[in-house]
This record gives sequence, structure tokens and C-alpha cells, in this order.
Amino acid sequence: MTDTSRPARPVILGQNQYGKAENRVVRITRDGATHHIKDLNVSVSLSGAMDDVHYSGSNASVLPTDTTKNTVYAFAKEHGIESAEQFGIHLARHFVTSQEPIHRARIRIEEYTWERIEVPGEARHSFVRKGQETRLAQITYDGSSWEVVSGLKDLTVLNSTDSEFWGYVKDKYTTLPEAYDRILATDVSGRWRFNWTDDAQEMPDWDASYEQTKQHMLRAFAETYSLSLQQTLYQMGSRIIENRDEIDEVRFSLPNKHHFLVDLEPFGLKNDNEVYFAADRPYGLIEATVLRDGREARIPADLTTL
Amino acid sequence: MTDTSRPARPVILGQNQYGKAENRVVRITRDGATHHIKDLNVSVSLSGAMDDVHYSGSNASVLPTDTTKNTVYAFAKEHGIESAEQFGIHLARHFVTSQEPIHRARIRIEEYTWERIEVPGEARHSFVRKGQETRLAQITYDGSSWEVVSGLKDLTVLNSTDSEFWGYVKDKYTTLPEAYDRILATDVSGRWRFNWTDDAQEMPDWDASYEQTKQHMLRAFAETYSLSLQQTLYQMGSRIIENRDEIDEVRFSLPNKHHFLVDLEPFGLKNDNEVYFAADRPYGLIEATVLRDGREARIPADLTTL
Amino acid sequence: MTDTSRPARPVILGQNQYGKAENRVVRITRDGATHHIKDLNVSVSLSGAMDDVHYSGSNASVLPTDTTKNTVYAFAKEHGIESAEQFGIHLARHFVTSQEPIHRARIRIEEYTWERIEVPGEARHSFVRKGQETRLAQITYDGSSWEVVSGLKDLTVLNSTDSEFWGYVKDKYTTLPEAYDRILATDVSGRWRFNWTDDAQEMPDWDASYEQTKQHMLRAFAETYSLSLQQTLYQMGSRIIENRDEIDEVRFSLPNKHHFLVDLEPFGLKNDNEVYFAADRPYGLIEATVLRDGREARIPADLTTL
Amino acid sequence: MTDTSRPARPVILGQNQYGKAENRVVRITRDGATHHIKDLNVSVSLSGAMDDVHYSGSNASVLPTDTTKNTVYAFAKEHGIESAEQFGIHLARHFVTSQEPIHRARIRIEEYTWERIEVPGEARHSFVRKGQETRLAQITYDGSSWEVVSGLKDLTVLNSTDSEFWGYVKDKYTTLPEAYDRILATDVSGRWRFNWTDDAQEMPDWDASYEQTKQHMLRAFAETYSLSLQQTLYQMGSRIIENRDEIDEVRFSLPNKHHFLVDLEPFGLKNDNEVYFAADRPYGLIEATVLRDGREARIPADLTTL
Repeated sequence: MTDTSRPARPVILGQNQYGKAENRVVRITRDGATHHIKDLNVSVSLSGAMDDVHYSGSNASVLPTDTTKNTVYAFAKEHGIESAEQFGIHLARHFVTSQEPIHRARIRIEEYTWERIEVPGEARHSFVRKGQETRLAQITYDGSSWEVVSGLKDLTVLNSTDSEFWGYVKDKYTTLPEAYDRILATDVSGRWRFNWTDDAQEMPDWDASYEQTKQHMLRAFAETYSLSLQQTLYQMGSRIIENRDEIDEVRFSLPNKHHFLVDLEPFGLKNDNEVYFAADRPYGLIEATVLRDGREARIPADLTTL
Repeated sequence: MTDTSRPARPVILGQNQYGKAENRVVRITRDGATHHIKDLNVSVSLSGAMDDVHYSGSNASVLPTDTTKNTVYAFAKEHGIESAEQFGIHLARHFVTSQEPIHRARIRIEEYTWERIEVPGEARHSFVRKGQETRLAQITYDGSSWEVVSGLKDLTVLNSTDSEFWGYVKDKYTTLPEAYDRILATDVSGRWRFNWTDDAQEMPDWDASYEQTKQHMLRAFAETYSLSLQQTLYQMGSRIIENRDEIDEVRFSLPNKHHFLVDLEPFGLKNDNEVYFAADRPYGLIEATVLRDGREARIPADLTTL
Repeated sequence: MTDTSRPARPVILGQNQYGKAENRVVRITRDGATHHIKDLNVSVSLSGAMDDVHYSGSNASVLPTDTTKNTVYAFAKEHGIESAEQFGIHLARHFVTSQEPIHRARIRIEEYTWERIEVPGEARHSFVRKGQETRLAQITYDGSSWEVVSGLKDLTVLNSTDSEFWGYVKDKYTTLPEAYDRILATDVSGRWRFNWTDDAQEMPDWDASYEQTKQHMLRAFAETYSLSLQQTLYQMGSRIIENRDEIDEVRFSLPNKHHFLVDLEPFGLKNDNEVYFAADRPYGLIEATVLRDGREARIPADLTTL
Repeated sequence: MTDTSRPARPVILGQNQYGKAENRVVRITRDGATHHIKDLNVSVSLSGAMDDVHYSGSNASVLPTDTTKNTVYAFAKEHGIESAEQFGIHLARHFVTSQEPIHRARIRIEEYTWERIEVPGEARHSFVRKGQETRLAQITYDGSSWEVVSGLKDLTVLNSTDSEFWGYVKDKYTTLPEAYDRILATDVSGRWRFNWTDDAQEMPDWDASYEQTKQHMLRAFAETYSLSLQQTLYQMGSRIIENRDEIDEVRFSLPNKHHFLVDLEPFGLKNDNEVYFAADRPYGLIEATVLRDGREARIPADLTTL
């Protein structure tokens, strides 16, 4: 990728990418008095033959980030927003195929869900933001193959029993008592990669896939009698892969949100797994990839950065 | 309140209060295999005969903030958490009646709502955080009368039509074009004051009142054909007061979350109220109190501080 | 304030205000190759004869929030930004004197400080944000008198010794051991009110006053041997009032940021006030007003809202 | 890594890691009346032979995250905190060498800087948090070789001139006018990798290296006449590598924090690069690695996740 016509440099350019981040687009579709809403946060990241702009400041191969922003808004009109994934596919294809210096486009999308406020009468144009998890999609295209990773973050779940933790290694710094009935709580941050990579394949139904995947994940969390958060994580991931043929790989980053049983004995009270202090920091952090046997892992290890 | 036995001071103590803020308490109630959860963030603020601690550092009349924290957790066991308001009433009464130097207690509570994850079988101990608005309650007691203010924050609502803004004052700095069909969106921050002030009165059903008040507010937002956010605010407040006899005063702080129609003409596209840019800052901020005729306003003007 | 020509209403309008919040304005002043920067976040809040807009949606007396935003930017050019306080005075006077329905203007300003990046040569146009406290100013004008409150937030300070806490009330919920050498740490949120209220008085030097006030506060924090955070708070406030004639009232909201000594005995180690766990929540919250004897307290009790 | 004694599974475990995140440790060192403070946020992440805990819930090879937390606090006493990097090296070595199932430890540290509050007299135990950038360190050890990446985040810098942007690609979605004198501002997020990998090599002076690296970066930002943020980024990175022999690779993630010149012409005013609107979103995002010729790039592309 480096410009070989240049004299040797002691300091060279490595991986680089650029674009406009966090374009907030709200798309209203009017079906008579019934309106529909899509609410996205779209980040564009492009890479390719960009050595000159770094070395000399020549912008001759640079499509401005402002243009990538305009394209997001124009495409919301031209193509509509069927799903976050479909919208990202339109954008990624456009950038790679329309500009020769751009060899790869990555589109990241956050989606916020709205519920309808039901009122008597015809008008249906009022919404309240659902406020639960944020849906995520990342679409990458290099001109020949696709990678689609969907996911979610900030989905907080809790089991008030059926969780234990014992039988672990003890060393000189271990003071934790074994637990046979504890709260297990986490803010789920998950990503899952589709095996759709090629325009010749039929695309998944992205929205149906998302809803089903979320339900499998929630049910696995609820139904697993947990001996560790790692075990619960594996159950959540394997349940998805076993049930969703379109998904080959899942990665979770699960903070163990500690709920400490409060010692009420000084006050002459018995705390029979009733009253907990919900701590902020520190928290356990359990991260793992679960994948279909024989498939390659491609989701990066760090979904979160410190 | 000042200690009159002291020599005159050039600098005197004014209003003061202290306590432990943001005690995170999770209370599980077990009804066989069916569990229930209450998740609160409780802040205690006490005031009274506290001059000495400020002037001389004598702590002889100070109940430590650590003790107020312990009391929150102990009361979660002793009294349970029937509702945020009821729990705050227990706490406030305790502090004022049990410690002579404490003349006034104010309990502020944030409540986070959880939904049950439904799975086949008997076990019902799995929850997902709803994630919508945060419910608020503030209980103040001075030993003789009560003030209960409930409310919510971060409830995001949007009307995609039936909102106009025109006919306003124009001065030399005015450039805004009049709007005849715009998006109206806001993050509702609301507080409402109950007319229950006395132990001799029958208490409202706090949870039922909250649910009804929220529904009236949402319906008023959805059903008002808006000529300004001020007008919508008044409709939201008056709808509550007209329908809820237990409430005398409502205050809202409503950011006007601007959604700007994107100019797509440079790209040969017509934007027929379809594609919007959701802006962060600046935002309009509309604040007002609405109250039952003949009643006194008591909720402070500033729900938010810059 | 209510429109008396209207029929009686069961639900009436109380205190109300509106404006554009968080206008982010950066002002560069060029003195040859030496540039100067002012970086403000300005919020405008207006009130007056605004009943109609709430009751009927008539905007005939409403100066749009968009116009207030434009005015902020235009005034940054026309008047420059000498200080946050001076800039707010220009704005408040303008709104109240130029529009008959506006009876009161309140301008709130956050200011972010920048330091110069020093490089060899003439050019002096590079800056790094200082990142310490945020400076605050609030200017209120009702057409006849002024109220100026300045302040700061997010100034984190810590004494690693010379702090004790003992001799307090014990009740049945008290478990806290007395402390004879503890860390005392807080994020200072302070506001101070000037006795300049009238155009006939000479104005303070706002920037010099701010710098001196901050220094007095920091020195008082460092020099007080503390028996409670309340005592330290009083010393910080009284030091300001004793040294700054232009200030009559100070209010602080001081979280007691707990640093717990970690128990290292299970590991055979002695923790001689060396290793601490810095906790997030809960925290003590100590709030008080300190004022010049004979003057009235006017700063609201709640600088922070839950 | 997979347990080969098990029957084949349709869903297998991939990369996994676990530990306690965000341990907040404050270490006071007393040198008579002069105290010193170190304030860290330490996250531990361990990986190794952990298949069983995921597959079956057996914790036989799991050192609890609670133990990793205890170890952080114990090591703050036993080893002191000379620098973030040195502290992380002690921790990583301990985990890998003391527990057979742990094959790799990664320690991430955020460090907050404090300045002394100077007061007359002997006592020197009062501090104010500097509040500028957060210093970062990441130490990884696999039992044989080390990787140390240091860095910083949230260092906000601005040039008020000497920045242009023109000569870029125009397509049908381009509307941006070329700029010949604009503000260039960014929040620097940078990471740099040391070529110290082996206990046999002499370690760098971590603190001196950090201070020098930061200064080179700031000076390069200030001294570069910018034709694009990409060009400035390359200058910042190459300046570090040219001047610091201990560093082989630098990666920056630089948001282009747009400052838009406000159009004051409607008000009869000329805006001669004086008054700017500082926008929040969207922002350009420029990311690149700069490395010493012949060395391998190892810092991941994504310092930030959406």
C-alpha cells in the first residue's frame, strides 16, 4: 500500500482509515396517517490508497468526510432504511465501487428502537423511545466479499437465584468465600457474525434474525443454572449458533455486575438473600468467542477499550 | 438556627444539609419460585441543629452518613420496599423522630424498572432491565408535615407531524423560517407534587398514581396538535391535574430536541419531511410549572443545573 | 403574571422560562501572530409575559430560541468576550431591554480554560485544554437589578492526612469506626454571589476575582486540619468572604469521596495509611451556604439534582 | 486449547479472557511531612487453559477475579507504584508465573495526575487533580516476552490557524467548500509500543519516556502547517519515532472536532475567523499507525469502539 516511488523513509505509514463518525439520521416513512420511524447513528470508515495525504498532505485521493456524511443522508432518501444492515450494505458498496482509491469501507451503525404511543383515532405519528438495548451493525466490504457483524449493547439482565461460584483456585491472595446462591447480573455486549459474505448468496432477513437472536440469548441466560459467568456466556453463544444457521461466530463481553449481600447482623436482622448492594467498580469482565466448529474466528477480542 | 451562645461572627452559616447519596439497593422478594425485584438509588439529606459541626468541627449532633446508608439497607429488610414513595416515608420519619438534632429529612429515590424474562416452567427469577424512563421520588418531612414529589426523567418522545412554529417575534437577530410541519421531540423531565401532607390523610396508591400519570402525560403529548412546545407542555401538565385529584402541581423541563430537515436539493433529491439530522446542542429548553388553581407552587424552578 | 382577561381556569400556569441551552461558542482574537481563545457554553433563559404561548399556542410574544442562539454568536463578535460575566451582562441587558414581553433574563455560562502550547518562533496559535475545573457564571437581570453568581465545578482535591472523624452520634444502625487519620477528598462544586447589583456600582474585575477566589478556596482546603467535611467547607467559604469584599455568599456542594483503607492483613501485610480503594458510590454529600453577616442568602439549596 | 478428551462439539470456544476490571487504587507514600500520590485504575485480564469453565462450569483452573483484585491492592503495598508500566509488569509476571493454567496476562492501567497545592509551612499533603489527559499503559506477558503499550486519551488540542483543506475528490454528494484558514482541533487518543520485550533488555525510564513523548506530540501538533488532519497525525507519530528510540509504533485515533465559522452576515457583521460554533456530532475520525521502518505493527486498528 505504501507509495514505492518515494525515497525510503525511516518512519512509515501502517493501517489507516478515515471517515465521518456518528451521523445521526432519523428517517420518517409516511403510510397515510401511520408513520414509521428509523433512528440511526451511522459511522463511515474508509481505507485505501491514502499514503500521500499522510506523507505530503495532498488530498487528491481523499473523498471528504463531509461528503461521506452527505451520502448517508442522501441514501436515507434514495434507498430508505429497510434495516441497519441493508442500509450499511448500500453505503459500503457505494464507497468502494464509486471511488478508485477506496479499497475498503466499514459502516458501523447504532440503532435506537421506538414504540408507538397508542391513542384513539386515526393518527399514528407519536413515539416513545424504547430505551432498552442499543442494536449494532457493522458492515465491511472490500470490493469482493462482505462481512456483516450485528450485535447489541447495554442490555442489562439479572438472575436472582440459580447461580453459584465455588471450587476455584485459592492462592495467598484469595479471600472470597464460596457462593451457593448468588445474584448473577450483567450488561450484555454481544456481536455475532453472519456467514453471508457474497452477493450471490441470499441475504438473511436481518430484522427477523436480530429478534430471534436476542430471544435465544435471553432465554439461554434465564434457563442456565450457572456455575460461573463463563459457563453462562458459553450457553448464550452456543444457543445462538445452534438455532441460527446464518450465524457462525458470537463474541460476548460480559461485566459481572456484583450484587453484594449486605451484612445486616449488626442490626439484629437476618439477610436471607433479600437485600443487596449493587456495586459500580470494580467488576469482573468475562469475554469469549463461541463459534461454529470448523469456522474461523474474525471478531476482534476487544469489544470494549479501557 | 445559629448558635446564639457564640460571639458574633463576620461570616455565618446558612442553609445546610448532609447525608449519604446514591445508595444502590436491590431488594429481592421470594414468593416460592417467583421472585420480585426492586432496584433503587436512594439519597438521604438531613438538616437541623448542625451549626457546631461547621463552626468547630464538633460532631456531637452528627449522625454519620455511613449510618444513614446502613439505615437504608436495614429498612429494605425491615419494611420491604412497597413503593419508592412508601420506602422514603419510612426513612424520613425515622431520621426526624429518632434523632433530636435532625429537624428535617429529605429522601430522594431513583427507581429502575425490570421486566420478567418469560421462560417455560416454574422458575421465575430472571429479569431484563426495561431501560426506559427513570422513576423519581422525593419525600421531605419536618416532623409535622410531608411533601411528596414524584416524577421521571429521560423519557424520550417524538411526534413526526402535527407540530408547527410560526407567528413569533422577529428582531434583527432572527433568521429562523416559520415551520408548518416539523418533528417535535423531547426528553421529558417531570416532577409532580401530591397534596398528601399529613399522616391523618389517606395515602395515595403511589404505584397506580405513577402509572396513570405517565399515561396521561404520554397521551397528552401524542394528542396535542402543537403550535409550540410551551403549549404542549401546558397540555401535558393540565391533563395530569385534571385527571389526578391527588396531584396539585406539575413542573416540566423539556429540551426541544431539534431534528433538522436535511437539504437534499444539491443531490437532486426532494426531502418531503423524510430525512432529518438529530442535533445534540444547542437545544431549546422549555420549563414551566402548571398547578391547580388556588394551590401554591413549591417545586423549585431548576430541575436541571448547568 | 396570569392573563386576567381570560375566564377562570382550573389549571393555571406558574413560573416559566425558556431559551436556547448550551450554545457552544469559541472566540478567537488575533493580536498579530499571537492568538487568544475563549471557549464558552452559553445557555439563555427568558421569562415574562408568556401566558398566551402556554394556554393557546400564540407565539406573538415569543422571541424564538433560535434567535437567542444567533444573538449569542453575534454578541461574541460585536462585544467580544472579555470575561464570562461581562459577556453574560451584555446578553441579559439586551434581552430585557429590547423585547417588551421579556421581564427577566438569566444567562448561564460554562467556561473551559486553554493553555498555550509554547513552541520556538513567532507563531502563538496552538492551545491545549487545561482540563481542570469548569468555570461557571450565572447572570440574572430583571430590568433594574443584577445578580451575578460565579463558581466552578469538578475541581477534585485531596488531603492525604490531617483529617479525622469521631465523636459523632451512635444509634442502633451505626457501625462506622472512628477515624483519626483519613484521606479527605472531594469534587468541589461551588457558587459565590457578588454584591454588585446595580449599574451605578463599579464592577468587580471578574477574572481577577475568580482566580483569587479559587486560590483562597484551595488554600483553605489545604490548611484546615479537618474534624469533618462540614468544618472544612465552612473554612473554605469563610476564607473567601473574609478576603473578597465583592462576595457576600458562597454555597458548596461537596461529595465526600470515600477512600477506604484496604485490609491487607489476610496477606500478612500492614497497611500503614498507604493503600486505598477509591469508591464511586455511595458518597457523603455535604452542602451549605456561608454568608457575610447581615446579608441575605439567595443561592438555591440544590446545586445538583439527583 | 480445546479439551480434546471431550466428544466433538458443534460449537467451540474461541479466544477468551477474564479478570477484574477497573480496580481503583490510590497509593500514598509518606516522606516525612511530604506525601506523594499515585492514582490508578487497574484492569486485569487473564487467559489460558479455561475451556472447562466455559463448557462445564468447573472452576478448578479459575483464579477468581476477586483474587486478582486483592493482588492489585497487595502489590501496591509490596512493590509500591514506581510507574504504571512497572506496576503492570509486576502484576503480569505474577499471574503468569504463579498459576499454571494462566498462559497470558494483560494489565491495563489508567493513571490520573495530581498537582501539589502549595501552602506555606512544612506540610505537603494536599493535592488538586490536574484534570488534563488520562495516561494509559497496557502490559502483556505470555511467560516469555513482553509487550508494553503506553498512551493517553482526552488530550484536547487546537490550532486557531495554519490549517487548510482543499484539493480533495469531488463527487455528486460533495458540497464542502475548500478551506484555506480553518481551526484544527482534536481530542488526542494515542498509543505507542515499546521495543522492550525481554527481561534481558534494559527497561526504559517509563515516566521520562511518557513526558518526552507527550511533549514531542504536542510540539509536532503545534508546529505542523496542516493540509489535512491525516498529515498532522503522521507528523505527530513520526516525530515520536524519530526522537524516541524506545518506541517502534504509534497509533492515533483523532476526531476532527469541527469548529464552524458562524455566518454573521444576516446581522450586518463580518466574521473574520473570529466566532465559531463548536459542534458535537458528527465528527471526522482519522486513525492511522505510524511505525519504524522494518518493524511489525501490533497495535489493533480500533482504539475506540462505537
